Amino acid sequence: MPDLAPWRSPLSRALHRNRALAYARYLQLATVRTDGRPANRTVVFRGFLDPGNQLKFITDGRSAKVEQMQRHPWGEVCWYFPKTHEQFRLRGSLMLVQAHQTDSALRAHRQQQWRELSDNARLQFTWPTPGDPRAAAESFAALAPEPESPPDCFCLGLLVPTQVDHLELRGEPQNRTLYTQTETAQTGDRHWISQSVNP
Amino acid sequence: MPDLAPWRSPLSRALHRNRALAYARYLQLATVRTDGRPANRTVVFRGFLDPGNQLKFITDGRSAKVEQMQRHPWGEVCWYFPKTHEQFRLRGSLMLVQAHQTDSALRAHRQQQWRELSDNARLQFTWPTPGDPRAAAESFAALAPEPESPPDCFCLGLLVPTQVDHLELRGEPQNRTLYTQTETAQTGDRHWISQSVNP
Repeated sequence: MPDLAPWRSPLSRALHRNRALAYARYLQLATVRTDGRPANRTVVFRGFLDPGNQLKFITDGRSAKVEQMQRHPWGEVCWYFPKTHEQFRLRGSLMLVQAHQTDSALRAHRQQQWRELSDNARLQFTWPTPGDPRAAAESFAALAPEPESPPDCFCLGLLVPTQVDHLELRGEPQNRTLYTQTETAQTGDRHWISQSVNP
Repeated sequence: MPDLAPWRSPLSRALHRNRALAYARYLQLATVRTDGRPANRTVVFRGFLDPGNQLKFITDGRSAKVEQMQRHPWGEVCWYFPKTHEQFRLRGSLMLVQAHQTDSALRAHRQQQWRELSDNARLQFTWPTPGDPRAAAESFAALAPEPESPPDCFCLGLLVPTQVDHLELRGEPQNRTLYTQTETAQTGDRHWISQSVNP
């Protein structure tokens, strides 16, 4: 069972202190487009894959970011907490858990995530293809799909952080800590080192 | 004098309706690192370069994003407005206005931006190099530099949007409009077209 990374504790504290703001669970995910230029959009934090330090989000297999993640599986999340004036930047590799996933544990995580969604969130996966010219109103179904079998376009996305940059704007002058995952050359064991750096 | 782009009006409305939240002027800027992976951080919106549709932000010439912008001058901003539940994604080219800028109008904009900063914001440009191991407390000056002559490391950054994606989560079901800058082949004239697309 993987240990909790050392940045999990300040991140949990930030989530707790900002819990009154629903949008404190919204974060911005940057990817690289197929033309090499950056893309950036808001996603909702869906918790951590248990056990482990991987951030969960959901996405539609028909959206541009899925193609981007398949071509270039690297991302950086920027997460600003308004109440406590702090920012976490988490970068690492991106993974997609799709309908054809063969790993049974990951398949179960995808099913579980689908069950946990609200009807409104599930409904969006029945809508016409995102980004296409606006379809007629009647193409947008009003009945949410049932919670047991996710549609093919439903993807669970994972960010596997290898570096986390935590900036506290309220420090004196400001505090910034860099957490970096490193690998022991001989054993291949991974561990985190943290360093206080200039803001 | 350039016309206001058609996305300026919904963006102004969002800024106005969210004006009670200081952090509604914070947005996330994605760039591409020198290793080709994405980077993402919060910057403060400093208004538009007048006249025109270019978004202003400030940055420290010693920060990683300046090197990224020089190597790969493309960015995408993700701007979420909490009160009105809407998101603007603005993508385009990035420009840096630095101390050695030769264009006199841009030089003046950089000077003007420096003058408009708070003492606290100006102070940060005197701090030790961002991202280096944390310097001793006495290295962080307590006296803000004077407002007339910006230090060499002070950069005015500009995002020159060529596509804007506006998503209103409160629509029925949701509204999404794509604004794209296009060029007339014969004359080279640029204009914006807007299209309603599926959310």
